[in-house]
Amino acid sequence: MKAVVLLSGGLDSSTVLYQAKAEGMQCYALSFDYHQRHRQELEAARAIADSAGVVEHQCVHFDLRQWGGSALTDDRLTLPRDRDPEAMAQEIPITYVPARNTIFLSFGLAYAEAIAAPRVYIGVNALDYSGYPDCRPDYIAAMGKVFALGTKQGREGHPIEIHTPLIHRSKVEIIQLGNQLGVPWAKTWSCYSEGGGQTPPIACGHCDSCRLRLAAFQQLNLRDPLPYGAAARPGAS
Amino acid sequence: MKAVVLLSGGLDSSTVLYQAKAEGMQCYALSFDYHQRHRQELEAARAIADSAGVVEHQCVHFDLRQWGGSALTDDRLTLPRDRDPEAMAQEIPITYVPARNTIFLSFGLAYAEAIAAPRVYIGVNALDYSGYPDCRPDYIAAMGKVFALGTKQGREGHPIEIHTPLIHRSKVEIIQLGNQLGVPWAKTWSCYSEGGGQTPPIACGHCDSCRLRLAAFQQLNLRDPLPYGAAARPGAS
Repeated sequence: MKAVVLLSGGLDSSTVLYQAKAEGMQCYALSFDYHQRHRQELEAARAIADSAGVVEHQCVHFDLRQWGGSALTDDRLTLPRDRDPEAMAQEIPITYVPARNTIFLSFGLAYAEAIAAPRVYIGVNALDYSGYPDCRPDYIAAMGKVFALGTKQGREGHPIEIHTPLIHRSKVEIIQLGNQLGVPWAKTWSCYSEGGGQTPPIACGHCDSCRLRLAAFQQLNLRDPLPYGAAARPGAS
Repeated sequence: MKAVVLLSGGLDSSTVLYQAKAEGMQCYALSFDYHQRHRQELEAARAIADSAGVVEHQCVHFDLRQWGGSALTDDRLTLPRDRDPEAMAQEIPITYVPARNTIFLSFGLAYAEAIAAPRVYIGVNALDYSGYPDCRPDYIAAMGKVFALGTKQGREGHPIEIHTPLIHRSKVEIIQLGNQLGVPWAKTWSCYSEGGGQTPPIACGHCDSCRLRLAAFQQLNLRDPLPYGAAARPGAS
């Protein structure tokens, strides 16, 4: 069975891709260059798509800097640093990109309908990213209705389904699942910063995304294989 | 009050823009270059946005030819010619672009949230385009729920609303409304073809979009001011 898998190249979406493969899907990976601060993640997406052996990997290009509204698409806004994971969950953070998952899922739906794939996988997570409105189960259910009503396939009785295998898992549980599935963490990229402009890039270790990732690896007594900047790893911070 | 208005440059969306203005909105027009066959419509969108005096006109660029799936995004598929409006309503036509309105509304939502606009206007029409799944009221209601749940504004109790002033109007009624509002029809563009590569472009008169438009003007005993190719106007066909 064909499946479109939204792939940012981060820890979550990479795990979802390997999970979809494990479920026997023929995977069509879909990434987005929306002129995000951390375009570095697209290199990771390519590497992960290659490793997983997808049928095809498409990247859609558009520019969300046209209107900004997020620290990921407007360089005048500063990335939060060194926040505790508990604090992140309390509010919708400045790294929230207006309607990003709605845009991503819309393109996923278009791609799925064009190739007659009955499923779209997305690595949303309601626990660690509980601050993001477009990662919660009620939102995904609403998009599911759009998938059913807004397409030819859906109207003809074959709605394209949204699969969210990580939605109720913690970051620790996602790493455990990824380890079972053999996700090559060293090829993934989670950091919101520009990677320090270095080759190979170095994750900052201080943005919300690095902090969540590092904390989860530490909780499992595992070493995250990504290179991090000085004083970035927990214990050192 | 700010409003994002989705503007293709066709008869319907141009009327919606003028309607939003008449309702007192400060209009932020949003167009899409998705590598459609009839990119000519973007010139019309620019002209109409100028005429209406919008606050801002943004155009988002992306490429739906990456996966095709429609006669508007795949040149190997042929545009239907000289169909009766009744026949068009019977089935989902080959000019249906997978998930197009879902993509358009998603960007509209993102833009609206970024500029804190409480409304998004779209010129969908359930009568003349009853074949299109993503023009029907149940679909718009489902997207409304996504708008409410998938954004920071919505979660904070201020959902961005979708306005569809044309949804229950026939093409004849839309032209009557546009005439009241002073829409400059000569600046609009509806034709699905490439415009014959001529300057000024000439509408084909044979595609579904031209046929619907010409039939409605004829029913009102009005002359559509657009230039059409030979034998294109009703009576001549």
